[in-house]
Amino acid sequence: MNVEHTSKQYQADLRELKEKLLSMGWRIESVIQDAMQALIQRDSALAQKCIEGDREVDRLEKEVDELCLKILALRQPTAVDLRFITLGLKIVADLERVGDLGVNIAERALELNQEPPLKPFIDLPKMAEDVQAMLKAALDAFVGEDVALAQKVLQSDDKIDELNHQIFEELVDYMGRGSANIKRACRLMFISRYLERIADHATNVAEMVIFLVQGRDVRHTFGG
Amino acid sequence: MNVEHTSKQYQADLRELKEKLLSMGWRIESVIQDAMQALIQRDSALAQKCIEGDREVDRLEKEVDELCLKILALRQPTAVDLRFITLGLKIVADLERVGDLGVNIAERALELNQEPPLKPFIDLPKMAEDVQAMLKAALDAFVGEDVALAQKVLQSDDKIDELNHQIFEELVDYMGRGSANIKRACRLMFISRYLERIADHATNVAEMVIFLVQGRDVRHTFGG
Repeated sequence: MNVEHTSKQYQADLRELKEKLLSMGWRIESVIQDAMQALIQRDSALAQKCIEGDREVDRLEKEVDELCLKILALRQPTAVDLRFITLGLKIVADLERVGDLGVNIAERALELNQEPPLKPFIDLPKMAEDVQAMLKAALDAFVGEDVALAQKVLQSDDKIDELNHQIFEELVDYMGRGSANIKRACRLMFISRYLERIADHATNVAEMVIFLVQGRDVRHTFGG
Repeated sequence: MNVEHTSKQYQADLRELKEKLLSMGWRIESVIQDAMQALIQRDSALAQKCIEGDREVDRLEKEVDELCLKILALRQPTAVDLRFITLGLKIVADLERVGDLGVNIAERALELNQEPPLKPFIDLPKMAEDVQAMLKAALDAFVGEDVALAQKVLQSDDKIDELNHQIFEELVDYMGRGSANIKRACRLMFISRYLERIADHATNVAEMVIFLVQGRDVRHTFGG
């Protein structure tokens, strides 16, 4: 058996997995970006584009899943790579869910764009920026296996919870000023929750990066 | 090499994985049950118990993950079992998220129990019952590899979306009747969304069951 050949194929498969996960990550970053633009610029065509683009994300998820299965079935990965591949399966599920949340933002934007604006956007775009930065950092930490960066993602989560709470209180206040505001304020409140959940998924990814690298460091693994 | 011995250990590992996933599922069913009781019976002690019980769910998730890694590393599973194990890794993530949503319901219950009731509960307990039935059916479909039951879970999801919409409209109406209602109505609206998301996770599990069984049927698998 040509071990070196197998090993080269194997390294190529692992590289392909990493690249596919990353390109899915980038795709999803732009979904969130577009969904927020659709909201802020009141661009319903862009919202529609976001919603339709979700099929591409679902397709990427299936590709990553199948690639993981293929590597597991054919390459008998070592313990450390096994951990990477099984985390790949989990990360792709988190990313797919983030894509769905982007779609949810676009759906609320479509509804909101049919009515006059409730108020100028200040906190929500700020929250979206922070959440997008978290998602980007989590993916960068994954590529670079950068524990320090992953730790930073975990620390950002409290700030997001605080922003979410602040937006909640402000929107409750708007609702109290007139019942015509209520539905629109509810939809904006939902968007704030979606962003909070995207931050939770970024936190999940960051935790997995730490688990992956520390697992590698302590060599406390099965069969390796 | 004693293949039969390996095979017996392997079957035992697979059985252990199935059992662990199921006991985690049952644990989570009772978390949702308790969280809803804490809300309806205004039982803050029960809500607190729910929130603390989440550590047990997180522990079970780690156990399932480690068991999956162990089976993958030591047993070189066949293509069909490989699919089962990789789905196990995904299902456990869905279940853990459902547990978190149970905790979120309990958190909102704690807040709501500090104020007078907004209105008698009618739709929310109904929705919770339907969602719990979906979750139970999804897990039963998984154990029994029952595609027909899994299909039924998928069909239930539309009904949940409709209930969620109905609850949204009713709560918007309550908010319009007086600003004192707004915060409580928002919290109830969040609970309705949490239940909708639990239904989404049950739908995910059901889809994976269909994928698993059909993958087995068509034998369209890698390395098998």
